[in-house]
Amino acid sequence: MGVKKAVIAFGGNAILKEKERGTVSEQLQHCRETCDALLDILDKGYELIIVHGNGPQVGNMLIQMEEAGGKTPSLPLDVCVAATQGTMGFMLEIEMRNQLRERGIEREVTTLVTQVVIDPDIEKFEHPTKPVGPFYSAQRAEELRQEKHWEIVEDSHRGFRRVVPSPRPVQILGIQTIKSLVERGHIIIAGGGGGIPLLREEGGRMVGVEAVVDKDYTASLLAREVEAELFIILTRVPGVAIGFRTERERFLDRLTVQEARKYLASGEFPPGSMGPKVSAALDFVEATGQEVLITAPEVLKQALEGLTGTRLVKDDVPSVKLM
Amino acid sequence: MGVKKAVIAFGGNAILKEKERGTVSEQLQHCRETCDALLDILDKGYELIIVHGNGPQVGNMLIQMEEAGGKTPSLPLDVCVAATQGTMGFMLEIEMRNQLRERGIEREVTTLVTQVVIDPDIEKFEHPTKPVGPFYSAQRAEELRQEKHWEIVEDSHRGFRRVVPSPRPVQILGIQTIKSLVERGHIIIAGGGGGIPLLREEGGRMVGVEAVVDKDYTASLLAREVEAELFIILTRVPGVAIGFRTERERFLDRLTVQEARKYLASGEFPPGSMGPKVSAALDFVEATGQEVLITAPEVLKQALEGLTGTRLVKDDVPSVKLM
Repeated sequence: MGVKKAVIAFGGNAILKEKERGTVSEQLQHCRETCDALLDILDKGYELIIVHGNGPQVGNMLIQMEEAGGKTPSLPLDVCVAATQGTMGFMLEIEMRNQLRERGIEREVTTLVTQVVIDPDIEKFEHPTKPVGPFYSAQRAEELRQEKHWEIVEDSHRGFRRVVPSPRPVQILGIQTIKSLVERGHIIIAGGGGGIPLLREEGGRMVGVEAVVDKDYTASLLAREVEAELFIILTRVPGVAIGFRTERERFLDRLTVQEARKYLASGEFPPGSMGPKVSAALDFVEATGQEVLITAPEVLKQALEGLTGTRLVKDDVPSVKLM
Repeated sequence: MGVKKAVIAFGGNAILKEKERGTVSEQLQHCRETCDALLDILDKGYELIIVHGNGPQVGNMLIQMEEAGGKTPSLPLDVCVAATQGTMGFMLEIEMRNQLRERGIEREVTTLVTQVVIDPDIEKFEHPTKPVGPFYSAQRAEELRQEKHWEIVEDSHRGFRRVVPSPRPVQILGIQTIKSLVERGHIIIAGGGGGIPLLREEGGRMVGVEAVVDKDYTASLLAREVEAELFIILTRVPGVAIGFRTERERFLDRLTVQEARKYLASGEFPPGSMGPKVSAALDFVEATGQEVLITAPEVLKQALEGLTGTRLVKDDVPSVKLM
């Protein structure tokens, strides 16, 4: 199988930006910009597998369902993730198709509804930590605890917020389909929002669960499964820094596995921010020996040329030249 | 290509039933029943391509967005269709996977986000007829006309309701992917809600449009494109009747193209009910010479045996035996 493959992960906030209302026309505009950047990777000779996040998009759905009160039944979180795979997959696919046409490139684009089997980590289910959805008043929080058996915590004086488990993905359903389509030159959009989380019950039956899988971990697993040559994580900053937002801030153009592990352990990369990205990147580099590029979409082109961004690479081994 | 293929269409009301609240657990239960029926078609030696409707599901989304008022931006109708391809595709896929496992059948199930290019029929866009979403008061209807430029009509004294165009699909994007995956034994879920409607602008750029494509027409086009041997339309009644719900009601076990055309012209099959089903069926039979089976999911097994249901077939030609 001769094609070079790149898996690219980016957050839902690359498409629905904080300072905007988040209308579909705004989101389509950002899909356009994102696809434009992604096609630079194609230009470099890589096939593309795109894994988008969905945080703000699911957030809006949860607000709408809360506002609709009892009028229509709310969708559980796994089904909300499925919804954003449809909506965001569509928006990305159509903009990708339009850009391909403008550039005169003939490529099929395929968006797959993707489920992931998660690690049934008891600890993560008993002590959920990932906040989702709107802020509630103390009274509404109590109602929801009673009514829906949600875990709700107070969120730094902004109100009360639901928390859900954020388990690791262990299996991506349909991975062979993704692999064979990408080998045939399809641009693939899959694993959106980290994938729809499933638990495998005793006996083998699979059920959706109300959890959120980190899209970086799903993308990392996907990159390993398809044997990608490159894994790219797009984020809001041009690269990975130590001492981030302090006086000693220093962006790193290159980071070995050993260094990354050290910095992770010393708390340089906080959870909920650069932590899971570096951790997901580490999993990939350790398993495959291939590189991860962490950068911002706005400078991706320069990063692909090696001018910016952070590359996570295998530890340097003393090069023994036998000749 | 040696496999026999069946395309099966059913409405969103097979999954979200009128008399229920429409919770996800109710919908999953109906997905289970539906998949159970569909596997009888697989047992008969056909590969499956499943096209679901989404009427009540999109209806609920539109209610939620109306209730959320200005809090978060509403999604346009094309993006709502995309959402239900995610939600319903997921629910059907997981129940199909569970049923396959229980029956010991090894099959991959693939759900594709599907866009369709529509016929830019001016008449249908200038005089939209398909009602969608909640009922509004006269005052709210007027607001929405001003604010969103929606076409809103009074609906038989129940209030005011938005109407959108219901154009015919002319091209299914990704059809070759569907075809090649089904040839490799995948059970395919595609074209949900009739597909996400796109218009091709001058110059070739494609844009989503606020319209609803009838899932029966999309399924019929899909069945022709993949060269299906059988097209099955599942509905609420066990078969097609003339004089439906009158004293002269008579269910037909067999209907030729010529008869179907005659009955359609004489108004036996009303629009918004059996009309589009028979019309979509006709398109398939005329193009391929293959059969269409119209029946209810509850009696599908018997219908496959020829014991009930209506078969739409090519006109009888005088059989000339040359011997």
